[in-house]
Amino acid sequence: MEATARAPGKIILSGEHAVVHGSTAIAASINLYTQVNLRIFDDHENGDRLLTLQLKDVELDFSWPVGRIREALPELSTPSSSSPTACSPQFMKLIAALVEEQDIPEANAGLAAGVSAFLWLYASILGCKPATVIVTSDLPFGAGLGSSAAFCVALSAALLALSDAVSLDLNHQGWLTFSETDLELVNRWAFEGEKIIHGKPSGIDNTVSTFGNMITFKLGNLSCIKPTLPLRMLITNTRVGRNTKALVAGVSERTLRHPDAMASVFSAVDSISRELSVIIQSPAPDDLAITEKEAKLEELMEMNQGLLQCMGVGHASIETVLQTTLKYKLTSKLTGAGGGGCVLTLLPTLLATSVVDKVIADLESCGFQCLIAGIGGKGVEIRFNGSP
Amino acid sequence: MEATARAPGKIILSGEHAVVHGSTAIAASINLYTQVNLRIFDDHENGDRLLTLQLKDVELDFSWPVGRIREALPELSTPSSSSPTACSPQFMKLIAALVEEQDIPEANAGLAAGVSAFLWLYASILGCKPATVIVTSDLPFGAGLGSSAAFCVALSAALLALSDAVSLDLNHQGWLTFSETDLELVNRWAFEGEKIIHGKPSGIDNTVSTFGNMITFKLGNLSCIKPTLPLRMLITNTRVGRNTKALVAGVSERTLRHPDAMASVFSAVDSISRELSVIIQSPAPDDLAITEKEAKLEELMEMNQGLLQCMGVGHASIETVLQTTLKYKLTSKLTGAGGGGCVLTLLPTLLATSVVDKVIADLESCGFQCLIAGIGGKGVEIRFNGSP
Repeated sequence: MEATARAPGKIILSGEHAVVHGSTAIAASINLYTQVNLRIFDDHENGDRLLTLQLKDVELDFSWPVGRIREALPELSTPSSSSPTACSPQFMKLIAALVEEQDIPEANAGLAAGVSAFLWLYASILGCKPATVIVTSDLPFGAGLGSSAAFCVALSAALLALSDAVSLDLNHQGWLTFSETDLELVNRWAFEGEKIIHGKPSGIDNTVSTFGNMITFKLGNLSCIKPTLPLRMLITNTRVGRNTKALVAGVSERTLRHPDAMASVFSAVDSISRELSVIIQSPAPDDLAITEKEAKLEELMEMNQGLLQCMGVGHASIETVLQTTLKYKLTSKLTGAGGGGCVLTLLPTLLATSVVDKVIADLESCGFQCLIAGIGGKGVEIRFNGSP
Repeated sequence: MEATARAPGKIILSGEHAVVHGSTAIAASINLYTQVNLRIFDDHENGDRLLTLQLKDVELDFSWPVGRIREALPELSTPSSSSPTACSPQFMKLIAALVEEQDIPEANAGLAAGVSAFLWLYASILGCKPATVIVTSDLPFGAGLGSSAAFCVALSAALLALSDAVSLDLNHQGWLTFSETDLELVNRWAFEGEKIIHGKPSGIDNTVSTFGNMITFKLGNLSCIKPTLPLRMLITNTRVGRNTKALVAGVSERTLRHPDAMASVFSAVDSISRELSVIIQSPAPDDLAITEKEAKLEELMEMNQGLLQCMGVGHASIETVLQTTLKYKLTSKLTGAGGGGCVLTLLPTLLATSVVDKVIADLESCGFQCLIAGIGGKGVEIRFNGSP
């Protein structure tokens, strides 16, 4: 049995950091995917009875004899695919032992956490069947584009698709969407994986990756909004690593030092997110309407960027991107934690391809990575490659 | 009789643009001066009985026979130095005729207005005596550093010093300060000059230039604050000309489009100005205290700069200054209208001279003009060069 799931990454369109202090934020899916191909072997196919995880992008392979997994995690022999459960600290230790048996570079704590999440989701949903899981991704790792959530969502989707918990048309050709109920299940499992990787994730990344579209969130309340216009962004990865926790703490400290000013700043961000949400959902019947909306979005992005600089989460690399895109009259804002990371640049519908090419050449000459993405599109999807 | 007055320029430390929408702003004098040397001739000294204005920095000379001035402005033959009066539209026309007789480059409307202000102040305060007035200035013209106000203040001070309206010790050696009452008079006359140059000036520039120190202003209310610490700023003139009216209008239009967000932004600026005012006036007994204060000022400057970008008054040249100074871990913000113009960079007390030299070299290599100024210091002063 074989299935491939793909799950999108995400960007924060507005409200990063301020959301921690009660403002509305908006996240959007991007049409850049993490793809998980899952092949479960019949007994005669896989003599060694191995569970193999291949991470193609980092060229790493991990394998465990399924007997070894069953021995390490005896209680997981009977999977419970339809009721997502958290990985207990006790199980976490058992899984850590399985991960430690693999040859993971010590510096790569994130990778070890991802492998742990993989083992938990795999064993919880499918039990201890021999299989090969191949992961590929368009998403840069650790750049704030939700690569870990996309991994957890695509993995959960592929595992559930071959479990008894969801019902799908196995003969469907091409990409297939889950039912709303099944998406809920995928999302809940993915969130359990995210918890293993991040400790206390907000749940936003996996929700966007699962359901696609855009999501507004405020004080823990998430709601889905469907954009009425196609939006295209240039995503520039500055490749400058950030310490998200330190950046979030920095904003909180600044808020303690300047409570009145920062309260106003967060309030301004909240207004911007609410305005964006209205614009994104209002009708855009023609190119003129789309161009007008894009101009409004650009203004709100510029404002949000100024407010993020006011919070102190800027970085020289971000400024370089802003300056470079400004030369082409394009508007940019950082997305996510700031202090490096990724920068969004709105690519208006009527912008000439030649301009986009020039901007990208300029940015790449600074050592940045450029990705073009449609935003607010589809969530997780599945396809069946082999016979059921 | 001869007197030389010098009057400082100004910077806006915080609150530019937001002040138009009700926020507090702070302006500070800078120890860069416009100097006006006034020499009134006895009858036997100046056979031609000319009034001559020499603008040394632009290498321009203007001269009028005093008889011509008396003929053009008959009612001003009896000066009223102690009661500042506005130049009526009718007088403005008569003065314009005198200015038109001079060879002023047509493009230079600002210069013509400055010469008109000169004639009004001269004739109103001293009547129609032959004299030579020599103007030199450290201040770049039209860069938002209050060069026109410094000119009006220094001119009014020199004229009043040689009039009957103020009493000064003519035998004093070196720079001499006016009494508070006399400063009020200087300020009121300078404001009349500013009105001729700017139409509807706020009165802030001439007040700072007259009284020195710093001034907070909100909704038309001005109050003087005295800094407890020496503050030094690098002022970078991007040499990018701006249209202040268009920039102010742009912020107002953005405010109409996004009333909630912008109200919060202006409120944040108000908080920042109020915090700055407290820090500037609180005791700073030692270097440690000064360094701590400087760090706070830097943070507030960074925040204000972000909010100005949020208002849309940034410019690529300003970003270049920000980026360049950031390389040396120095904090900058635009000052005044934005869209080019000048940028402030705080130079901490303990910063090595070699770093300052490097930053300046970097900025000058971008084609910018760099000035170093102490801020919040003295206002207008006078000295008597010849015998009384």
